[in-house]
Amino acid sequence: MEFADRRSIRRYAERGIPRELMEALAAEASRAATMGNMQLYSLVVTTDGPEREALAAAHHHQPMAEEAPAILTFCADYNRFSLWCGLRQADPGYDNFASFANAVTDTLLFAQAFITLAEERGLGTCILGTTVYNPDMIIDALHLPRLVFPVLTAAMGWPGEFPEQTDRLPAAAVIHNGTYGNYAPEDIERIYAYKESLPESRHFVEINGTDNLAQVFTRFRFTRDECMEMSLRLEKALERQGFSLPGRKV
Amino acid sequence: MEFADRRSIRRYAERGIPRELMEALAAEASRAATMGNMQLYSLVVTTDGPEREALAAAHHHQPMAEEAPAILTFCADYNRFSLWCGLRQADPGYDNFASFANAVTDTLLFAQAFITLAEERGLGTCILGTTVYNPDMIIDALHLPRLVFPVLTAAMGWPGEFPEQTDRLPAAAVIHNGTYGNYAPEDIERIYAYKESLPESRHFVEINGTDNLAQVFTRFRFTRDECMEMSLRLEKALERQGFSLPGRKV
Repeated sequence: MEFADRRSIRRYAERGIPRELMEALAAEASRAATMGNMQLYSLVVTTDGPEREALAAAHHHQPMAEEAPAILTFCADYNRFSLWCGLRQADPGYDNFASFANAVTDTLLFAQAFITLAEERGLGTCILGTTVYNPDMIIDALHLPRLVFPVLTAAMGWPGEFPEQTDRLPAAAVIHNGTYGNYAPEDIERIYAYKESLPESRHFVEINGTDNLAQVFTRFRFTRDECMEMSLRLEKALERQGFSLPGRKV
Repeated sequence: MEFADRRSIRRYAERGIPRELMEALAAEASRAATMGNMQLYSLVVTTDGPEREALAAAHHHQPMAEEAPAILTFCADYNRFSLWCGLRQADPGYDNFASFANAVTDTLLFAQAFITLAEERGLGTCILGTTVYNPDMIIDALHLPRLVFPVLTAAMGWPGEFPEQTDRLPAAAVIHNGTYGNYAPEDIERIYAYKESLPESRHFVEINGTDNLAQVFTRFRFTRDECMEMSLRLEKALERQGFSLPGRKV
């Protein structure tokens, strides 16, 4: 399948993914660029057992979290590297925010490479946006040690549906030449016109009783209060995992 | 080219990348998953002029930063979405850490998709790890407004070299079944044995005068002091761009 044809898959055939395929995909995806060749990531593959139940709960029991053959949790990981340093009389100074940022970068490049390769082999995936809501529950469910943090979760399986593609903004809207050319109001109107015109957008506006689609996002889908609440949880979980935010130290 | 055969490219032929190709790649890469279909990213493509000089300086004048036909700066972007909300009497509550985290995720999934697609068409890339060192200089060089933050920088061009592939850890070392199985010392020894045995690793140890490879990382490449300094810069730059860290607010 061409990348241009991809869509997220939320229903799956009842058929597992062989361990050997997961390892082959991980080996190939590990060719993605990585900071100083440190490979600051781990992938936890969860299929069943009490950890699967705990993980599904962390993801609000969404149908994909309950039903997909496998849940893939891509974690920023400075634990493995720091253990190595510890065995070599080397002092690993990676319990800080910049090191977390570097590990997140490694993790997400690896994750997208893995997902692209999996989809090329016919697998279907759906990212669970709930990872940022309940990091503490995921840390507990997967027994993540210090310096390991859940960054991205993908449900994965063999497709049991072929949904319509969702819309995207015009490509020119996300590219800037030379420097960032900020958007004038008429640019914004043009960029969002197609999205706002779609029947599903009009449907969302109607069922939520708002004036327009933007208000569906700000009042219901990603509210200010919820984002602040998530920020606090994220900070607490980062502290717990040993990645200190500098604001606390200064 | 198969993804398994990829390598970072640091020398380039003297030939530019057509704007149409950049837009085609952006259109295709935008099929990557995105939180709530918000597409929280922008790509700034910088080729020449004073902004190119300022950008090369931010990247410590590395040869790729000076010589590559194009420098791609992938930015977390809640500005575009918030401008849209502002035009629709919707209150965008995205000036916080969780929203930044969501935008970073969108940005890096898009970035790896873009890079994979570019490499499939014969382009070569090299990630510049310096993005996290000097976010403030990059923000200035590219005129990034509030709620836009540089996350990943790639030098890009048509390959002018075909280097050896670098090593990677065994795939089994980064996959965990069910939950995170922590590493025993003998696991770490096994996982890092090949890397430590390589002639280039022994060479790094020799020229740095350390006892082993881990100490090359902790004493020279990614030191504790440097990571702390980077953490502070990152925090300051996040505050400047309007993504408040919650530790400051509590």
